[in-house]
Amino acid sequence: MKKGILIVVSAPAGCGKDTILEQALAKNDNLFYSVSATSRAMRPGETDGVSYHFKTREQFEDMINNGELLEYTEYCGNYYGTPKKAVTDMLEAGKDVILKIEIEGAANVKRIFPDCTMIFILPPSIKELDRRLHKRGTETEEVIALRLQQAKKELAFAENYDYLVVNEDLTVAVEDFLAVVMGEKCSKKRSVGLIEEILSDER
Amino acid sequence: MKKGILIVVSAPAGCGKDTILEQALAKNDNLFYSVSATSRAMRPGETDGVSYHFKTREQFEDMINNGELLEYTEYCGNYYGTPKKAVTDMLEAGKDVILKIEIEGAANVKRIFPDCTMIFILPPSIKELDRRLHKRGTETEEVIALRLQQAKKELAFAENYDYLVVNEDLTVAVEDFLAVVMGEKCSKKRSVGLIEEILSDER
Repeated sequence: MKKGILIVVSAPAGCGKDTILEQALAKNDNLFYSVSATSRAMRPGETDGVSYHFKTREQFEDMINNGELLEYTEYCGNYYGTPKKAVTDMLEAGKDVILKIEIEGAANVKRIFPDCTMIFILPPSIKELDRRLHKRGTETEEVIALRLQQAKKELAFAENYDYLVVNEDLTVAVEDFLAVVMGEKCSKKRSVGLIEEILSDER
Repeated sequence: MKKGILIVVSAPAGCGKDTILEQALAKNDNLFYSVSATSRAMRPGETDGVSYHFKTREQFEDMINNGELLEYTEYCGNYYGTPKKAVTDMLEAGKDVILKIEIEGAANVKRIFPDCTMIFILPPSIKELDRRLHKRGTETEEVIALRLQQAKKELAFAENYDYLVVNEDLTVAVEDFLAVVMGEKCSKKRSVGLIEEILSDER
């Protein structure tokens, strides 16, 4: 069984990251979405084990102390982290594992798993991101301005990623995302020993 | 208009390279197949301008002297080469250009276009390649033995390629081939200036 690949996905808010991942997961059975753990309170509409694994601060700190997290960070007084076992089990089982994670956590994962594939999802333009954030109609002008500022800051880190997927058209972005994963799996650096195996008479 | 990428494809005889390319070209309108030039005689079933651009030795040597070829090689007393203009015109027009070329020519193209994408198509095993060559029923045992020897020699060069596509199942191989091309176009190294462009208010 060939091991799966670890895929780290980051994007500023409003870039359609969740929708792209949802559609990509529906189209490729070999993808596994790693659900993060958090100590923040569950919000209306969220489901434990789907949105996040919701933990108390104490439970989360136990996970840290027991080495059960791949990485974690504290943000606005709440912990966020990636449970290790599900990720490593799925990789061993040949699944390609997706971690949706902000840029700081992504950089931490890269340090631990240097051969993870890092994908950054970009808006087609800042103007368009502005338009999309307004279109939702759920946030005040002030919050939108803050989110745009934050998006610009985060975009500067896209340089550190292996692939850039622009979400101009959703269908194209989902196809590009899936192509990146499938194409990466054909890369020679991920096929160590394949040529020797074919040349040997064992296959 | 973003420039297209140059894709070099090599494979030993019997690996299904022609069928994969035919199906990939039918599914992706942005691919352009570069027809090689040769000084060898046209064979029954071949069409000038489709199979090859058929030239006399004199015409071929004129092309060499006029710098009209990207690369060329002499093999069994015949010239084979890649006309330059069609390739560069199509790349400029944003098309992704496919060169089907043996390993020596491929290495020459890599020297001239260091950022070309090199794809090697592999048989699932030598045994299976043997089976496929026998199944055709068009060649003698001696020729098949020679082809297998040649395939083994060529497989050793697959190490120099960027991507390895195994043709075990044709449909999967075509999908993998297309994913490699689309995924490669999303790679950060092919997106120089994209982040700056998005961050600027020009888009």
